[in-house]
Amino acid sequence: MGSPTILPELGTEILVPVCAVIGIIFSLIQWGLVSRVKLTHEHTLSNKSKKNGFNDCLIEEEEGINDQSVVAKCAEIQNAISEGATSFLFTEYQYVGVFMVAFAVLIFLFLGSVEGFSTKSQPCTYDKQKTCKPALATAVFSTLSFLLGAITSLLSGFLGMKIATYANARTTLEARKGVGKAFITAFRSGAVMGFLLAANGLLVLFVAINLFKLYYGDDWEGLFEAITGYGLGGSSMALFGRVGGGIYTKAADVGADLVGKVERNIPEDDPRNPAVIADNVGDNVGDIAGMGSDLFGSYAESSCAALVVASISSFGINHDFTSMLYPLLISSVGIIVCLFTTMVATDWSEIKAVKEIEPKLKQQLIISTVIMTIAIAVVSWIGLPSSFTIYNFGVQKVVKNWQLFLCVAVGLWAGLIIGFVTEYYTSNAYSPVQDVADSCRTGAATNVIFGLALGYKSVIIPIFAIAVSIFVSFSFAAMYGIAVAALGMLSTIATGLAIDAYGPISDNAGGIAEMAGMSHRIRERTDALDAAGNTTAAIGKGFAIGSAALVSLALFGAFVSRAAISTVDVLTPKVFIGLIVGAMLPYWFSAMTMKSVGSAALKMVEEVRRQFNSIPGLMEGHTKPDYATCVKISTDASIKEMIPPGALVMLTPLIVGTFFGVETLSGVLAGALVSGVQIAISASNTGGAWDNAKKYIEAGASEHARTLGPKGSEPHKAAVIGDTIGDPLKDTSGPSLNILIKLMAVESLVFAPFFATHGGLLFKIF
Amino acid sequence: MGSPTILPELGTEILVPVCAVIGIIFSLIQWGLVSRVKLTHEHTLSNKSKKNGFNDCLIEEEEGINDQSVVAKCAEIQNAISEGATSFLFTEYQYVGVFMVAFAVLIFLFLGSVEGFSTKSQPCTYDKQKTCKPALATAVFSTLSFLLGAITSLLSGFLGMKIATYANARTTLEARKGVGKAFITAFRSGAVMGFLLAANGLLVLFVAINLFKLYYGDDWEGLFEAITGYGLGGSSMALFGRVGGGIYTKAADVGADLVGKVERNIPEDDPRNPAVIADNVGDNVGDIAGMGSDLFGSYAESSCAALVVASISSFGINHDFTSMLYPLLISSVGIIVCLFTTMVATDWSEIKAVKEIEPKLKQQLIISTVIMTIAIAVVSWIGLPSSFTIYNFGVQKVVKNWQLFLCVAVGLWAGLIIGFVTEYYTSNAYSPVQDVADSCRTGAATNVIFGLALGYKSVIIPIFAIAVSIFVSFSFAAMYGIAVAALGMLSTIATGLAIDAYGPISDNAGGIAEMAGMSHRIRERTDALDAAGNTTAAIGKGFAIGSAALVSLALFGAFVSRAAISTVDVLTPKVFIGLIVGAMLPYWFSAMTMKSVGSAALKMVEEVRRQFNSIPGLMEGHTKPDYATCVKISTDASIKEMIPPGALVMLTPLIVGTFFGVETLSGVLAGALVSGVQIAISASNTGGAWDNAKKYIEAGASEHARTLGPKGSEPHKAAVIGDTIGDPLKDTSGPSLNILIKLMAVESLVFAPFFATHGGLLFKIF
Repeated sequence: MGSPTILPELGTEILVPVCAVIGIIFSLIQWGLVSRVKLTHEHTLSNKSKKNGFNDCLIEEEEGINDQSVVAKCAEIQNAISEGATSFLFTEYQYVGVFMVAFAVLIFLFLGSVEGFSTKSQPCTYDKQKTCKPALATAVFSTLSFLLGAITSLLSGFLGMKIATYANARTTLEARKGVGKAFITAFRSGAVMGFLLAANGLLVLFVAINLFKLYYGDDWEGLFEAITGYGLGGSSMALFGRVGGGIYTKAADVGADLVGKVERNIPEDDPRNPAVIADNVGDNVGDIAGMGSDLFGSYAESSCAALVVASISSFGINHDFTSMLYPLLISSVGIIVCLFTTMVATDWSEIKAVKEIEPKLKQQLIISTVIMTIAIAVVSWIGLPSSFTIYNFGVQKVVKNWQLFLCVAVGLWAGLIIGFVTEYYTSNAYSPVQDVADSCRTGAATNVIFGLALGYKSVIIPIFAIAVSIFVSFSFAAMYGIAVAALGMLSTIATGLAIDAYGPISDNAGGIAEMAGMSHRIRERTDALDAAGNTTAAIGKGFAIGSAALVSLALFGAFVSRAAISTVDVLTPKVFIGLIVGAMLPYWFSAMTMKSVGSAALKMVEEVRRQFNSIPGLMEGHTKPDYATCVKISTDASIKEMIPPGALVMLTPLIVGTFFGVETLSGVLAGALVSGVQIAISASNTGGAWDNAKKYIEAGASEHARTLGPKGSEPHKAAVIGDTIGDPLKDTSGPSLNILIKLMAVESLVFAPFFATHGGLLFKIF
Repeated sequence: MGSPTILPELGTEILVPVCAVIGIIFSLIQWGLVSRVKLTHEHTLSNKSKKNGFNDCLIEEEEGINDQSVVAKCAEIQNAISEGATSFLFTEYQYVGVFMVAFAVLIFLFLGSVEGFSTKSQPCTYDKQKTCKPALATAVFSTLSFLLGAITSLLSGFLGMKIATYANARTTLEARKGVGKAFITAFRSGAVMGFLLAANGLLVLFVAINLFKLYYGDDWEGLFEAITGYGLGGSSMALFGRVGGGIYTKAADVGADLVGKVERNIPEDDPRNPAVIADNVGDNVGDIAGMGSDLFGSYAESSCAALVVASISSFGINHDFTSMLYPLLISSVGIIVCLFTTMVATDWSEIKAVKEIEPKLKQQLIISTVIMTIAIAVVSWIGLPSSFTIYNFGVQKVVKNWQLFLCVAVGLWAGLIIGFVTEYYTSNAYSPVQDVADSCRTGAATNVIFGLALGYKSVIIPIFAIAVSIFVSFSFAAMYGIAVAALGMLSTIATGLAIDAYGPISDNAGGIAEMAGMSHRIRERTDALDAAGNTTAAIGKGFAIGSAALVSLALFGAFVSRAAISTVDVLTPKVFIGLIVGAMLPYWFSAMTMKSVGSAALKMVEEVRRQFNSIPGLMEGHTKPDYATCVKISTDASIKEMIPPGALVMLTPLIVGTFFGVETLSGVLAGALVSGVQIAISASNTGGAWDNAKKYIEAGASEHARTLGPKGSEPHKAAVIGDTIGDPLKDTSGPSLNILIKLMAVESLVFAPFFATHGGLLFKIF
């Protein structure tokens, strides 16, 4: 069948992998540039003597820049963090591995049972004239792609962690040369992670599609059904990564702060604090590895959602390969667009002052969005026929290529708006955070009240942005429109991940500077990097949540199509009870994760207190604390505590689908989506605002801020309490919720044939 | 047409008003008993000499029982509180009055415009053969019943406040004679309010129906459509009462605590605190008047929802008056059942010890529920035909009388379960609150984390209870089933209100004891009454929220029927964007109310600090503070700040309905319902738990509690911070949310004909 697109099938087959490979190469180049900052004294010397690398352009000379012991100390701390993170991830992956294998077996059994493990080909669901591969094949390939997704997600998180722990001490050392140099190192390291993940996710998906095609041949319906397992695998892994990592990092952080900052009055990241290594390890396993898995999951799922809807639309029916792979084309050009954007940040001009950091990061968002809009227009023009039909719950809907361009673009720009709103509510350059800081005058209680109100308020505009994207993309191209809108929001994922990963790297760099006993000026620089990092982390979470909302709606739509339901009517009791129970799930989940962080933090507090009381000379800095016990407490707690919330999310769709059927499950998905999005946004913005309100008081950069400070003042103490409360909200509960939403949807999609055949047992009995 | 019910029409016409009058008489008797506690010295003496009234059965004689100055002081304080509350309510009602008149005009114009203000009769909507009254008549009578509902709601709140401020000093004085006497006085006063409200609401509704019938005659469809205005009026008033009162009480409470307890280290309710009168006034205008209006609104709305659905079912079509008034029959027997239940509490046995208070209150819930179940069975047997048909979105559904009995009963018992779960999570007799108290060891941050987690967790069982009620009642009798399930939950409203109002009365009694300088033993007794009151207040809120969820679903169903939509399909973009935006509204609303409380509290803090610093001799107790300025700050803040959240709730349905149409509005209603219920439950339980965790530490009743205390210890300070944060959650945002849910639904129902005719402008243009 001839392709009606300008870009021929062969062009697509070349373009996608080439872009992915370019992304990987670019990421390696960035790594190379970061690795030029040497962590051993010999190399530093030889570099200096050869006058190569960065030393060429030193903008200022500082005390201690050649101090051998500082470099060695940084290297030592970095090693400790890296080893702690690696060892935790290995432990975590062992447990998750067992679960993944068990779940893979479940997928095989459930999907295989749809047609009683028959190996006979069946008539296709949507085109009864044609013969499709048996359900057993879908079971086998879904299981395979599930495992593939899980492994890719695991790799994404692990590599991200490796890069971050490789980069943090290097950022610290560069901070001696000025804030500009440190920024570039941190940002480059973030870019390594961003490009590696985006390119890797794309490449694996592309290869999997082509390999599966060898078996499936013309049965694209079955092929792309099986591919959805990739999204499920990615998100399942991400769930445990986010929850486990989130509990780990916040148990350590809260525990360290409560004894260190509040009781003992020693600074954050002080090496005398026994929980300090655990805290820094946590940043890498939670904020980096967890977030990497999470965004990879979103990317995989939105691609799968778009592909599965397209496979039963005219692209799939006409076997139009280029149009079919339109979602992958968007991601491919996204990598190239982000590549240019990154070079603007790192090579165009250099940051000279602290106040330039945030505008620089914001610039990244704007540049990537503007160029990407043009790129999407081009891809939509060459990669799509001028008119085509899309499957819309039983009927076909005619769509023009410019309409689909608008769907992608509206998602992309909604992402930018969400990013800006998040920045406004969490950056201490604007009045919301300054008001929260101001409320610390009257104590912790008003700080908490104002912070919660800020989080609630910050939900309004993002929800309107999401609602508009949904309306526009749904009106133009039904569920396919939603899926590509989600892809649009994620098309600049490489840049998004880069600025997101930049945050924890800067945070760690500050920690290493403190622990290595570097000067106050260096700590000030890393603090400024970190404050901007808090905002970018919140922006990253905003993207993750916004895209999760769109992705899960698209997956929900795909599920409904596949389960052969044509309406989800709120006015039926089956759906409505699903809706209200679904809306409750994010609360249940948050209760679990917050309680877990709280309990683990209490254990940590006891251990840290014990060490301060029982190790002589610790407070005076003569003896080293026992870091390993604290690492063990965090590890044990997070492994143990990640199971119940994980089980809640993974089992709910199975239980509801099996016992109550697809209508109730539809209600649960819709309820969890509309309720979870709100809590996720408000939790992450409230937490970000509290953190930056504290930093605002500490930095004392304005007249107003100085009236609240300095460190140790009553308003500052109130701000520390807010910051501590915000920790589990912004780094455990909040970001895990978007996985809850997506994962339940993609799981329902994968199991849809089983639920449609065998589901609703309870209603069948009564 | 002959009645197929055992109870004839005449019987109904007699039974309903007689029950209502009995309720009113019982309430007056209780008032008489309360008023026997004299507040002037002369009467106390003459009473004593005549050995009548309670003095007959003094169980213990105490210091100060004859102290003239104490009695006079109590009377003086009570007067100050009563005057403050009356003056605030008058100011509030002036503003709200203007709004009500404006909104009444709006109702008339919108509904009148449906048929262009034509005075001609029209064919009926559901039975085209018959002629119904013109839309203009519905406009006029809806406006009338709106005003009637608003005035009844206003009266309910105002009378409740009067009773409470009449009773609080009397409770204090009785506390000198023992905890049992004080309990009976507080509980009797609560009962006065409970019965007066329940009976009054029923009577006004009954009279209105009969008067409207004079004009409408056989057109029951139009009659009961017009009656829905009663619910709208009741809830509109309740919204402003809850929000205005909530901001008032919490601004004063938070402000008083922050300076008094935290900075100056003086006890709660200390007369030296300038905000103390405002704080006590607040309890009466917020927790009493606001809550009275709120529950009256729920009651009026669930009755209206049931009536409007019944009017287009076989009851209405066959003009079967007894069955038609089944909802009112349930409420009528409810009053009688509650009457017996109250007598068990006040006359059967007397409380001897503090630990008997909570079981006694719990007993009330159980007894009323058990007896009511039997009563409902009887009413369903005599008041309903054995089989009838119910309108269910275009089709008629056959229902048996025992099925409808089950609908009411499931609502009733779901209410009991919600009550028990609330008690479990907010009473300091159980582990959840004790765990929260324990977490205060490590400071305010862990207290807040554990408290938030507790609130989230407390949502689970109530939501399942609501889901089961919805499923059962919906399956049996469609939306009519939901409406009567809500009525079932509210059928014991007299008892519910009594134990709910008991809380703030005890709280005030404690305040008066402290201010009058009464002994530590008396304060201990009032504190014990108050701790139980916190739990019962939380239970009351649980009922209010649970019933609000059912009521608004029923109203939503009635709206959908009246707007002639047959499905609300989540898979259409119009509905879905409504759903996600609707789920956001409770956050927007909470952000407004919490910020309002925070800002008003900051102003209060400044004023209280100013007085402590500028009035010489205030801290030493030589001079009196300037209470009036604090009262004025609370008044001004609440009047000003209640407008934006009020406008958000009142305008949203109008804007959405007019510009986006009935489908999007359906989505908004469903979204606000499923999301708002969760926040409302978690906010009120979190707040209740924090309050009682603090009281647990203060009371030091167990070994564990004593390790955390005493007052002024670090854990206690952390507990006070939690308590302060909980104040706006449990008394402003949380309880207002259930009005948000209900009010938007009833408003949509009233305006449904307008939206169906002229709505959706935006989609019509594009």
